[in-house]
Amino acid sequence: MSDYREFYRNRPVMITGGLGFIGSNLARRLAGLGADVLIVDALIPDSGANLFNIAGLENRVRLNVADIRQGGTMDYLVRDREVIFNLAGQVSHIDSMRDPGTDLDINCRSQLTLLEACRRHNPSTKVVYASTRQIYGRPDRLPVDEEHLVRPTDINGINKAAGEQYHLVYNNVFGVRACSLRLTNVYGPRQLIKHNRQGFIGWFIRLALDDQEIHIFGDGSQIRDFVYVDDAADALLRAGATDTINGHPLNVGGDEHISHRDLVELLIATAGAGHVRYVEWPEEKKKIDIGSFYSDSTRFQEATGWRPTVQLAEGLARTLAFYREHREHYVEDGETPT
Amino acid sequence: MSDYREFYRNRPVMITGGLGFIGSNLARRLAGLGADVLIVDALIPDSGANLFNIAGLENRVRLNVADIRQGGTMDYLVRDREVIFNLAGQVSHIDSMRDPGTDLDINCRSQLTLLEACRRHNPSTKVVYASTRQIYGRPDRLPVDEEHLVRPTDINGINKAAGEQYHLVYNNVFGVRACSLRLTNVYGPRQLIKHNRQGFIGWFIRLALDDQEIHIFGDGSQIRDFVYVDDAADALLRAGATDTINGHPLNVGGDEHISHRDLVELLIATAGAGHVRYVEWPEEKKKIDIGSFYSDSTRFQEATGWRPTVQLAEGLARTLAFYREHREHYVEDGETPT
Repeated sequence: MSDYREFYRNRPVMITGGLGFIGSNLARRLAGLGADVLIVDALIPDSGANLFNIAGLENRVRLNVADIRQGGTMDYLVRDREVIFNLAGQVSHIDSMRDPGTDLDINCRSQLTLLEACRRHNPSTKVVYASTRQIYGRPDRLPVDEEHLVRPTDINGINKAAGEQYHLVYNNVFGVRACSLRLTNVYGPRQLIKHNRQGFIGWFIRLALDDQEIHIFGDGSQIRDFVYVDDAADALLRAGATDTINGHPLNVGGDEHISHRDLVELLIATAGAGHVRYVEWPEEKKKIDIGSFYSDSTRFQEATGWRPTVQLAEGLARTLAFYREHREHYVEDGETPT
Repeated sequence: MSDYREFYRNRPVMITGGLGFIGSNLARRLAGLGADVLIVDALIPDSGANLFNIAGLENRVRLNVADIRQGGTMDYLVRDREVIFNLAGQVSHIDSMRDPGTDLDINCRSQLTLLEACRRHNPSTKVVYASTRQIYGRPDRLPVDEEHLVRPTDINGINKAAGEQYHLVYNNVFGVRACSLRLTNVYGPRQLIKHNRQGFIGWFIRLALDDQEIHIFGDGSQIRDFVYVDDAADALLRAGATDTINGHPLNVGGDEHISHRDLVELLIATAGAGHVRYVEWPEEKKKIDIGSFYSDSTRFQEATGWRPTVQLAEGLARTLAFYREHREHYVEDGETPT
């Protein structure tokens, strides 16, 4: 797999959700490798899509604003794309519990529309789906490998799991090559930090940036693993170039396991700002809490040679530096965290 | 649990998909127990819905024709129902692969609509969801218990799995009591036998009735278990009256494990009609074949005292007798199986 970078030179690829956090970092990487990059994004308000995420890249990627729920549009756009990184999705657990129908549309109907477009109009393409560790729910054992039951604790997790399974079935039955990466908590530059409905890590970073109080529920002993976004992009690239993993879901997790308490301490120390406060678990959060989680990525590592390369201390430092330089593109003027 | 029958006397219940195969048999049983039965069914053409399924029952149940995808309608209908047997669904694997979007609508959107109606308008109800052993896909080991991975081989299985998980999340997070029964191959009177897109057992029965050739793929050594529809209805009744299983998926399978070959032999002997022919696996069927399957229902049996009571030989005899008496209501005039 040392040549997976070469694989992308002049290769026509598509990134759905390419204006979002992971998608835009992946687009930068692909542009650097000389790929022919088509970004498809619906620019849904309050999602992670942000035009500034591709600033400076405008002449090296093509942007097509479109919603992947639109079958006719996707039928056309997929035609000549040899690798499709399918990152479009609704990622807010909270929104999914308020409005499950919209979550279903974005995380299930849209995936079927994209896969049908590939089946009918470009069956030789390869699709890499960005799944999430969230679909496992509360673990029975640690670390969590791919033999662990999938038992989501919220609607978003259920729909993401269905989206993943569609890809595997289209691979197995219709021959549209596809695999799915179950990404653990990804963090880094270009993540949405303007509200707190898309996971806690971006929001903690925002609070530290603004020298605000960071609330930890309970004693903060629950453990997580994290992947810096450049490492996540590298995992996606390797997956796109590796056919032995087609038809499989694979964990992509970090090799540092850290408690919320230690994470926040490290973040505050790195930022030189922010304060911690321990608070009682709110009832409705407690119900969907999953305790400790970290994943075993052995299967993916052995298949592709991937390893996380950016340690948490370094990753947080880079992330804070990025937002300090580009704050105005990620936080609205005068806005304060609540 | 000896009093679960008494539990239903005068109790307001709803059966979605109540004109279908399992739903109508359940409706008969509930009417016999003195329940206040509301059947909700959309009478979707080519589904199992059949008005003859409730013949003779018209004065003892109420029928409301409606589609459970209609939120406003369901908001009203669920209001006073104390137990909801949620059996509405698209059950054809084949149709789901031809038209995945419709399968998504019927098996996912509709379940969310029903559950949202309960959450908003009748949060104290109890919902029993009819899931299927099909969601397991190809087993890693036999018998299959609930710790086995869920790994569907087709779109219908994926959407049914999501439908199940919605129920468990609504139980765990919103307090709408719910459980899910993963039913194995159910057979018996009132099953759709006019086309072959809803599972093989009904179709084999139809072919035997018509003294036609029954095709077995390969050598017919793959094993299945079966549940007679009266036993399936009894399982649903017990589930509706048992709160200790809320939040859980539970297998409901048969205790006879029989190869396709032996099943067809038994069927032909019982019918005194039909012939068997062994044929090569069609390529597209082979791709989604799951090999042998039978399930372990210990968890459900211990929680509710349920046991299958009708053995296969007896069940097939009753089923054949039913269709011979009522053939014209299940097979169109002059139609021959193909």
